[in-house]
Amino acid sequence: MMARRSTNSSAREAPQQVTLSIDAMGGDAGPGPIVAGMASSAAKNPDIRFIVFGDAVQIKALVARRIILTDRCEVRHADGIVTMDAKPGQAMRNGKGTSMWEAIDAVRAGDAQVCISCGNTGALMAMSMLLLRKIPGINRPAIACLWPSRNAGGFNVMLDAGADIRADAEDLLQYALMGTSYARVGLDIDRPRVGLLNVGTEEHKGRAELKAAHDLITAASRQENFDYVGYVEGGDLPSDRVDVIVTDGFTGNVALKTGEGTARMISELLREGFNYSPLSRIAALLAMTSLGRLRKRIDPRRVNGGVFLGLNGSVVKSHGSADATGVSAAIKLAFQLGQVDFPARLAARVASLSTPVQSDADATVQGFGTTK
Amino acid sequence: MMARRSTNSSAREAPQQVTLSIDAMGGDAGPGPIVAGMASSAAKNPDIRFIVFGDAVQIKALVARRIILTDRCEVRHADGIVTMDAKPGQAMRNGKGTSMWEAIDAVRAGDAQVCISCGNTGALMAMSMLLLRKIPGINRPAIACLWPSRNAGGFNVMLDAGADIRADAEDLLQYALMGTSYARVGLDIDRPRVGLLNVGTEEHKGRAELKAAHDLITAASRQENFDYVGYVEGGDLPSDRVDVIVTDGFTGNVALKTGEGTARMISELLREGFNYSPLSRIAALLAMTSLGRLRKRIDPRRVNGGVFLGLNGSVVKSHGSADATGVSAAIKLAFQLGQVDFPARLAARVASLSTPVQSDADATVQGFGTTK
Repeated sequence: MMARRSTNSSAREAPQQVTLSIDAMGGDAGPGPIVAGMASSAAKNPDIRFIVFGDAVQIKALVARRIILTDRCEVRHADGIVTMDAKPGQAMRNGKGTSMWEAIDAVRAGDAQVCISCGNTGALMAMSMLLLRKIPGINRPAIACLWPSRNAGGFNVMLDAGADIRADAEDLLQYALMGTSYARVGLDIDRPRVGLLNVGTEEHKGRAELKAAHDLITAASRQENFDYVGYVEGGDLPSDRVDVIVTDGFTGNVALKTGEGTARMISELLREGFNYSPLSRIAALLAMTSLGRLRKRIDPRRVNGGVFLGLNGSVVKSHGSADATGVSAAIKLAFQLGQVDFPARLAARVASLSTPVQSDADATVQGFGTTK
Repeated sequence: MMARRSTNSSAREAPQQVTLSIDAMGGDAGPGPIVAGMASSAAKNPDIRFIVFGDAVQIKALVARRIILTDRCEVRHADGIVTMDAKPGQAMRNGKGTSMWEAIDAVRAGDAQVCISCGNTGALMAMSMLLLRKIPGINRPAIACLWPSRNAGGFNVMLDAGADIRADAEDLLQYALMGTSYARVGLDIDRPRVGLLNVGTEEHKGRAELKAAHDLITAASRQENFDYVGYVEGGDLPSDRVDVIVTDGFTGNVALKTGEGTARMISELLREGFNYSPLSRIAALLAMTSLGRLRKRIDPRRVNGGVFLGLNGSVVKSHGSADATGVSAAIKLAFQLGQVDFPARLAARVASLSTPVQSDADATVQGFGTTK
């Protein structure tokens, strides 16, 4: 455990360059906000490089205006664009040559460490599975998202946020492992607390696959470096009881959108409340700093970036409507993943657990432990 | 349709007395807040009567202090209390004689029209099913909850909020019917819009049972008095796109608690933000009215009361931690249900749909239509 901590922090002390491949055409507003986000991240972090895919003429014009991107950004032309309403299967069959396909393929080819796209989630997942393939031993890849919480770092991780609509007990165990690995890298938590989302915290509650997953995760927590807190409820998602919340992609997607919708409704009502009368408008002016702090804390742009876990290569899905701030948040996340070669880490962890009779596997884990 | 409207409003014009049976021992704080809520409701509504079950000495002392309850409140002694950690099966086997059991049994016996309890939800549902029995044709009863929304009335209905952890396509259709009936009575919406909760609004998305339910509800909406808007997402729960959101009890319970947890976190952060500095405390004073309006709009006490649907008798589950305001909100809801003999309405509706080849059933529905 100590070894893991020290190697982990030494990775932070000696950062290496990370190249990100960017699908510049997927977002709702085209390549403008994407290039702006790249410039903002490049200004903060000298170790980022970009390969950008899409309409070369348009992108080159945007990049030329950002001096910070000179020599740090390669533009590669791609003709096609995957539309937001394309079905995953259709996008997969006809996707070759699109900016999305080429951006993922750059990770497969080793030109870039992590791919970022603001495009169609289903198509992005389907193409990523086709091009990058699942890590051996992983049955279902998952999408992990960050959730504003009362934890010290400000966030929890929840997965699956919607890669697949079902998950059996084995899948949920794998989500727990993938989620803890991600929490170490993305949230810098050495020993994450994992919870399994259910309708109550009592042991007798919930579906059969949850009871089976409960036992599997309990057993895994003993040999892995995480704490299992047991069942958690929807109200724990923004809490400080837990760092990683595991659920199937159907429930996770509904929960994510419910939380976002609730936050949006409250902020709209707040805005209307402060526009109600002249006095309330004055109050709003005075309250601006306080409200600004709150807004920053729950700003959806700060949590932008669903990470695809379980593939031989990292892909970050940014919101389609992300502005420069949102894109920059996704880039920061992608950089963190690229720096530690996240897929290799995860593969070793999964391999260690899929051979519970520890023999040769032990050596593998130990060997990996010293390099990560 | 016209007949339904006019009879519906004539029921409102000529209110009749409604007797509610109250489990006074189930709440976290004992009978105090419950009797306070009863007094508050009694002051507003001259047509409510109560039969209260629990520790007679304690309750009589509390009732004696509220002059408004004189002659409108009968106290019946019950020795046992169902604890919050009791398992449903255990509570059902040993429940006889508890305040919860006796309160439900008063509805079965016809002494009261609606039962209210702040106690253990699982035990309350198990006992209610045992004593009141399911309406013929209903497979799974459901819990319907109100959800603060952007709709004109301020609320949507969501079900199932957690009566059962699973639901097949037929169950989801029944939830749609039960939810529309409830929206007519509880929210006074003549032609509710129904949505089926899913991970996307596109027709190809979601689980197999959702696709089957989609077809069933589409067909039912043609002969029933509601609009089916198709799939909705988590973000639509607080929206004005829909009035009734249908989902299984697992997803519904997670969504409900996620929404509550998100709202709670935001209001805590808001409070902390306004306590940050002397200036922000002054801002808070000025903003108090605006914030008060928001708080009232999303106050969980105002939406207190999960309604059990699908039984031969109405049961309202209030939050265990409800104060007088919360209990009074649950009483208001119970009164509305009691006034229209909700279970009989629902039974007729279900009967009309379970015989889609309209023959004798037609006559039944028409006959019922004129009396409701």
